[in-house]
Amino acid sequence: MSKSDGSVARVGEAELKRYCVDVLGHVGVSQADAAVIIDNLVEADLRGVDSHGVVRFPIYVERLAAGGSNPRPNIRFVRETRTTGVLDGDNGLGQLVGVRAMEAAIEKARDGDCAFVSVRNSNHYGAAAYYAEMATRHDMIGLTFTIGGINHMTPWGGAEAMLGNNPFAVAFPTGGDFPVVLDMACSVAARGKIIVAAKDGTPIPADWASGPDGAPTTDPVEALKGFVLPVGGPKGYALTMTVGLLSSMLSGAYFGSEVTHMYDDLETPQNIGHLFGVLPIASFEDVGRYKERMAKAARDICGVKKAPGVERIYLPGEREYLKMQDRRKSGIPLSRAVFAELRELGQRYGVALAEA
Amino acid sequence: MSKSDGSVARVGEAELKRYCVDVLGHVGVSQADAAVIIDNLVEADLRGVDSHGVVRFPIYVERLAAGGSNPRPNIRFVRETRTTGVLDGDNGLGQLVGVRAMEAAIEKARDGDCAFVSVRNSNHYGAAAYYAEMATRHDMIGLTFTIGGINHMTPWGGAEAMLGNNPFAVAFPTGGDFPVVLDMACSVAARGKIIVAAKDGTPIPADWASGPDGAPTTDPVEALKGFVLPVGGPKGYALTMTVGLLSSMLSGAYFGSEVTHMYDDLETPQNIGHLFGVLPIASFEDVGRYKERMAKAARDICGVKKAPGVERIYLPGEREYLKMQDRRKSGIPLSRAVFAELRELGQRYGVALAEA
Repeated sequence: MSKSDGSVARVGEAELKRYCVDVLGHVGVSQADAAVIIDNLVEADLRGVDSHGVVRFPIYVERLAAGGSNPRPNIRFVRETRTTGVLDGDNGLGQLVGVRAMEAAIEKARDGDCAFVSVRNSNHYGAAAYYAEMATRHDMIGLTFTIGGINHMTPWGGAEAMLGNNPFAVAFPTGGDFPVVLDMACSVAARGKIIVAAKDGTPIPADWASGPDGAPTTDPVEALKGFVLPVGGPKGYALTMTVGLLSSMLSGAYFGSEVTHMYDDLETPQNIGHLFGVLPIASFEDVGRYKERMAKAARDICGVKKAPGVERIYLPGEREYLKMQDRRKSGIPLSRAVFAELRELGQRYGVALAEA
Repeated sequence: MSKSDGSVARVGEAELKRYCVDVLGHVGVSQADAAVIIDNLVEADLRGVDSHGVVRFPIYVERLAAGGSNPRPNIRFVRETRTTGVLDGDNGLGQLVGVRAMEAAIEKARDGDCAFVSVRNSNHYGAAAYYAEMATRHDMIGLTFTIGGINHMTPWGGAEAMLGNNPFAVAFPTGGDFPVVLDMACSVAARGKIIVAAKDGTPIPADWASGPDGAPTTDPVEALKGFVLPVGGPKGYALTMTVGLLSSMLSGAYFGSEVTHMYDDLETPQNIGHLFGVLPIASFEDVGRYKERMAKAARDICGVKKAPGVERIYLPGEREYLKMQDRRKSGIPLSRAVFAELRELGQRYGVALAEA
């Protein structure tokens, strides 16, 4: 009996990457670009952030096939100073554009400056943590902000979607095995959890969602017709708006009523915006001392007295790191539905996908 | 009958500022420095952010008098590049140190660079929005992060305070009457609201606080022995840790177990850290086009369909702006308790405070 029997299909990292790169090749993406895109996508699966992994792959391929995204983008700076830049993604996949933008920010900061690069004409860029972590490998703090690909939130008090559940990430280098990473969207709960509750017929907590009239609801079916609610009420509204403005107003990317629906309209370029920033540690603090202090901070945090039933305190990003170690060894578990969808997509292009 | 009769004392802006500057003079602060400090403090009262206004004035004076803060700091850069700097606040009041740091960041960004200045050896700096807004007057986006003056939060799953309710602010210039400003701490509710509930004997929502064992509680008395809970659970934990690390690890300011209690220990310098950043609009986008787009974004947000019972949608920072217009005219309402405390403090130094 294979490990893959049962409710999930287990797929090896290398196999999943090969499959994705092959499929992207069939919709016009070069092998080099596809490798960049897929490293990001599969890392999300490895880290257990399944919502931003290969579950998104079919929609990326659909959009490329339908002309909504550009498989061969000419990514270029349209405005630049020594420490800032505006990158036009030429409607390329967000993962490719995002990596190029963060690489450019890191390059600009090589001599000790802080640097920020904004991006327009991009697409959904997957898990934000990936870009922030890139900076940590150069002993820099990395920051990134993005417009979400769908408006799922209302302004506080509203009953009409006008804001994305805009994610952002900040990553800190450490002297340990993994960086400390915040990666969050601004809703209390992901929409996926509401979909699960609707399927199960169980009520949802009152702070997860509002119905189509904008009033909070515990009925998941009403919630799916409505909106996700932001963390901390008006705080989360202000936060998701801030992330959205940072991601769009510095580049000319779309915001608010300009944002189209990633899944419902496959043909119109989304003009998604991002912002990437880096702060090189050495310009502020001796890197060795910084790492010692980060290690002490980690001991402080993880060493606190625990609440009843809690076995261990995790640093932000630690669970994802541990999950990645596990999945690198034992493969990536995909739901049968996702696995079937990927296989079906592959068949369209003659690309197989094998279980581990 | 004066407007000040009843449950609040109403004090004019100019009178309140004069009183505060005079008192600070008696504990060694120069008139010029005091004016800077008090502009920030009283602006919080004007904006309705009473928790960061003159309610904090007595503790600032106590700490100055007890030697916990330095009335005549020698604020200076200890590390600097063209776009970054580390400012040592020499244990001056946070409002003074913060303004100097943000001024320095703005100066560094004058030729179009982004710039970040970290701070160590500072103190509680009041309302974060004030510093972020400074940048908007130069057509720059302003960002600021700070360590809170007291550890009120546990790491997620913990039962021991190891994190401040660390605030941060981001402000965007607009072409309108006021900037768009996010200014938030990371808890669901301010501790002050729990104090009020305890006085009233009313239960608190389950997501506001945990008791001393780290388990969530609706009993405000238990909550006051325990900890405030972060917005979005583990998200808010990661967020407050991120704000704390940004504020301390780039400057050598205290974090975690190093943080002393602002009110319980008046004599030990707190070594509070902050971070200030600016992004000049013109380096990314034509300023006129940016302002047009911000105006369109505001129309999008404020024009959405409203939830039942909602009369108006506000932009982040708009309520505070409106409150300021009102209080500039009609005076600042102080609770009788706060007014009495200020008068008593003034009497110690022969400084009067008059009601409007």
